[in-house]
Amino acid sequence: MGSERGKEKLQALEMLPGVEKVVPILQPYKLASREVKPEKSVIAINDTVQIGGDEVVVIAGPCSIESEQQIVETAVAVKDAGATVLRGGAFKPRTSPYSFQGLEEEGLVLLDKARQITGLPVVTEIMNLGDIELISNHADILQVGARNVQNFALLKALGKCSKPILLKRGMMTTIEEFLMSAEYILSEGNRQVILCERGIRTFETATRNTLDLSSIPVLRERTHLPVIVDPSHGTGHWKLVAPMSFAAIAAGADRLMIEVHPHPDHAMSDGVQSLKPGKFAEMMQRLVPFVKAAGRTIKEW
Amino acid sequence: MGSERGKEKLQALEMLPGVEKVVPILQPYKLASREVKPEKSVIAINDTVQIGGDEVVVIAGPCSIESEQQIVETAVAVKDAGATVLRGGAFKPRTSPYSFQGLEEEGLVLLDKARQITGLPVVTEIMNLGDIELISNHADILQVGARNVQNFALLKALGKCSKPILLKRGMMTTIEEFLMSAEYILSEGNRQVILCERGIRTFETATRNTLDLSSIPVLRERTHLPVIVDPSHGTGHWKLVAPMSFAAIAAGADRLMIEVHPHPDHAMSDGVQSLKPGKFAEMMQRLVPFVKAAGRTIKEW
Amino acid sequence: MGSERGKEKLQALEMLPGVEKVVPILQPYKLASREVKPEKSVIAINDTVQIGGDEVVVIAGPCSIESEQQIVETAVAVKDAGATVLRGGAFKPRTSPYSFQGLEEEGLVLLDKARQITGLPVVTEIMNLGDIELISNHADILQVGARNVQNFALLKALGKCSKPILLKRGMMTTIEEFLMSAEYILSEGNRQVILCERGIRTFETATRNTLDLSSIPVLRERTHLPVIVDPSHGTGHWKLVAPMSFAAIAAGADRLMIEVHPHPDHAMSDGVQSLKPGKFAEMMQRLVPFVKAAGRTIKEW
Amino acid sequence: MGSERGKEKLQALEMLPGVEKVVPILQPYKLASREVKPEKSVIAINDTVQIGGDEVVVIAGPCSIESEQQIVETAVAVKDAGATVLRGGAFKPRTSPYSFQGLEEEGLVLLDKARQITGLPVVTEIMNLGDIELISNHADILQVGARNVQNFALLKALGKCSKPILLKRGMMTTIEEFLMSAEYILSEGNRQVILCERGIRTFETATRNTLDLSSIPVLRERTHLPVIVDPSHGTGHWKLVAPMSFAAIAAGADRLMIEVHPHPDHAMSDGVQSLKPGKFAEMMQRLVPFVKAAGRTIKEW
Repeated sequence: MGSERGKEKLQALEMLPGVEKVVPILQPYKLASREVKPEKSVIAINDTVQIGGDEVVVIAGPCSIESEQQIVETAVAVKDAGATVLRGGAFKPRTSPYSFQGLEEEGLVLLDKARQITGLPVVTEIMNLGDIELISNHADILQVGARNVQNFALLKALGKCSKPILLKRGMMTTIEEFLMSAEYILSEGNRQVILCERGIRTFETATRNTLDLSSIPVLRERTHLPVIVDPSHGTGHWKLVAPMSFAAIAAGADRLMIEVHPHPDHAMSDGVQSLKPGKFAEMMQRLVPFVKAAGRTIKEW
Repeated sequence: MGSERGKEKLQALEMLPGVEKVVPILQPYKLASREVKPEKSVIAINDTVQIGGDEVVVIAGPCSIESEQQIVETAVAVKDAGATVLRGGAFKPRTSPYSFQGLEEEGLVLLDKARQITGLPVVTEIMNLGDIELISNHADILQVGARNVQNFALLKALGKCSKPILLKRGMMTTIEEFLMSAEYILSEGNRQVILCERGIRTFETATRNTLDLSSIPVLRERTHLPVIVDPSHGTGHWKLVAPMSFAAIAAGADRLMIEVHPHPDHAMSDGVQSLKPGKFAEMMQRLVPFVKAAGRTIKEW
Repeated sequence: MGSERGKEKLQALEMLPGVEKVVPILQPYKLASREVKPEKSVIAINDTVQIGGDEVVVIAGPCSIESEQQIVETAVAVKDAGATVLRGGAFKPRTSPYSFQGLEEEGLVLLDKARQITGLPVVTEIMNLGDIELISNHADILQVGARNVQNFALLKALGKCSKPILLKRGMMTTIEEFLMSAEYILSEGNRQVILCERGIRTFETATRNTLDLSSIPVLRERTHLPVIVDPSHGTGHWKLVAPMSFAAIAAGADRLMIEVHPHPDHAMSDGVQSLKPGKFAEMMQRLVPFVKAAGRTIKEW
Repeated sequence: MGSERGKEKLQALEMLPGVEKVVPILQPYKLASREVKPEKSVIAINDTVQIGGDEVVVIAGPCSIESEQQIVETAVAVKDAGATVLRGGAFKPRTSPYSFQGLEEEGLVLLDKARQITGLPVVTEIMNLGDIELISNHADILQVGARNVQNFALLKALGKCSKPILLKRGMMTTIEEFLMSAEYILSEGNRQVILCERGIRTFETATRNTLDLSSIPVLRERTHLPVIVDPSHGTGHWKLVAPMSFAAIAAGADRLMIEVHPHPDHAMSDGVQSLKPGKFAEMMQRLVPFVKAAGRTIKEW
């Protein structure tokens, strides 16, 4: 019942003759569950932006911050198109140690500039628990990437932080494990956790990952935490971002996170899955009727 | 270039020193591709129902036909709610030889009755190529189930049949393999193939399968064939059917296939994933704004 | 308890408040289970070859039969190296309708010649239930390929056939489903079923499939049927065939099935995964100490 | 060629008409590759134990350190049976924050005692880069668990450490990604990296993970680093540990890592997959002929 220790004692019963399988009851997550908190959580990012309420919030911006011009140009463009939060990576987790690793601290300073100019709150990734204080001084939301979804040392440390945490599902994380990772943050005191579906790894190679939109209604039923979708990483191709964004809203997502880059062909990471600002603005227009069909609202231009 | 034989000869080059990987060019499917036929295929089921056009078509009905009362009651209910095609299984592929295998020929006769009463065209599954003539005499569309998606002997035989074929993606089938299976039917002469996404097998256990909605825009780009979605098998839980139906339409599906059963608790198969008629009617109402948001039409009541 | 119908009724209980999960007891396969038949099955192929006894049997031969010279040359070579059964495909399941589909009936005649010359019994694939009589007249063992593992119409028909059946696991078939497919054959009367692990589909792309050797001890515990391993399809690269053959015997396999081709570079299918006869002979020599370590015997030269 | 940035620029070419797919050449890992260092690496753990040479080394011990009596009793037993390295977890990564998290620093002190008594070098897991100095003072090998395989901040920090690193493959890590993670450590200066296959996540539920033994010969060909196998986590059932250990050695593994617990029924974690000392000793005896068949040596008793 909740504790894994109990689970293993129960599993030992499976060695007995006549016992086929022993199944523990009750979900092992508590603070994340609807049982404990039936109403949906609404997380305030700043004075004007909330995540989890009726209004659909769109986060947009480049995968990596590359230069002042690039981040400011993108921030202005996505704001004009209706985005209400800016994303941009300063510390980048890359499969290869020889790939561009981000502008790091310099990138955080550029994020500050983009916020001053546009007023948009910003989200950026944290990879190292030694950087919590530094990044908290620059970002409005701290993002935990898919590869760190079970980096429990980092999750515990973020549980003591005062900023909202955007926790991405891992490529190999079940919905139950995902909620348990959220529970690591919640159980240390930080109740501002936003869950993000970003695709799981399957045998299919036509898309970068398989975006698991069924996870949205499943999470909706099990947890009060807001659920957002990242169709850019979830599909890996800019052409698929618009249809999967519409589908995510139809399935009940609270928010979208979209990669936008002024010059995707020259992006230092993830160019293939980034929308140009013009395409992003077009997508935002087409999104409005789906938002209304879902009974939600969105800031319109 | 198209032929697998060529591909293997090319792969042999990978054994040479200095050659890391050899990749064939051009898709191996021809008749299914947009290159060969850029405009979308529209398949006429009967005088009034077409699949692939602007109108979204909803197929509904029970997993298995169990009795005259059950199939007729369901057919009337789903028609009232706006469905335009009736589904119902007479021959059932079951993992266990000891499970209910369907009413077989008796089921086909009951389908005829349901069509007479409601006027709805019917779709039913074919598992054995010896049954093609029999089932063609009763059904308007022949369905190939996920387990037979690479039963090439069956696909070839259906390529010589005059009825439209609804081909379900297998649990382990890539999008490219799925199109190659369609190509088996097309290359024998039958050009009326409808593709159906119904979920792929992944590590996630919260849902019966992982409904791969990204496959819809990918298929849209690669093929002119209509694409439909089965959220009942794709998720395995009736509560998830409505949100995933909305999402499927938002992602660009032409049609939905939904399991409806008057008494799911007593269904002989797949009761957990079947909607009651009342829930189905409610879902159809809520579907309308999503259909309009997608720029499509639907018959309204 | 065994029947899927019961399972679904039980699952309906999961909708009740307070019920988290309902799990059926007892395995749904009966005739395949160790509970019903504790001792291992030994299947006689002809007067001298048995599968399932202490002696490890090696099946070898080309993926496709291409010509009299090719199949006879290979048969002689694999016999010299210690193989006791010949494999060769006459009807080939190919992803593309435009790929070489096998020599069909002509290939069966060539198999007869190879048997006359070498005395080796032969195994060949059956894809269409209309071909059972034809293929039974030429083959000693009928093989059901991975794509047909849930082609229940074919399995039932083979259950009425008098030849041993070699049933390959599907790319996405669980061990339980695999045993249920065997049960389809057994329950119609044919008790001569040989199970073949040939790799499952995963996200890994370095190998064609992921050979699941853990399935061997799992199957050993659950069923009395012989279990063999196909490392050629399981890995897709000839260099991996020898180490995975040794590992398969160490894990407890009864038999190996290996692709051998005199000229892999010119093979009409699966050349990359075929061993040349010389490499095969070398592998057979190196296999002997592993066979002895496993407490088994093998015919030695 | 190596750099991911280049890769993305190349991928952008895929948007051009007539370009189907662009594939970069050469592996992106350098220091880990056989091209750079053709001979196998041999890593000295202490004066008497080396990993990567002809001698097969067996690491054994409990999942978690629970008490002085438990770890010392196990250490003595596994040494008597032929193990040459002791494993034991002090900091435990657990899916749930409410599960037993290990004895932490107290556990490290108990490891010291076990080493003093038996002379066995010890391996233990590191989860938090802030603990590197602490754990390095107690352990002979630092283990990075599957969940941290892409915790790049941790990997980089371990690249500056002087102890050998045992890097476990993640549940959804491709072989290429696994080597890239090793490259993170190597590229910071620490060349003592040992790779550990421990099973990948698939759809199969009969085993906890699917042990991918084909990865051993694939890794052998691509890298000079030693490769070991953990059949305890790889299968999740103690009954499968012996056959999969034999298979791992047959496939070419340098070393095994086995969970042993004096009282698995009372283990605080992973009891179901732990061997009792008597079973472990029996397995070690049966392992000897497989080691010899593989042309390797093992310390015999």
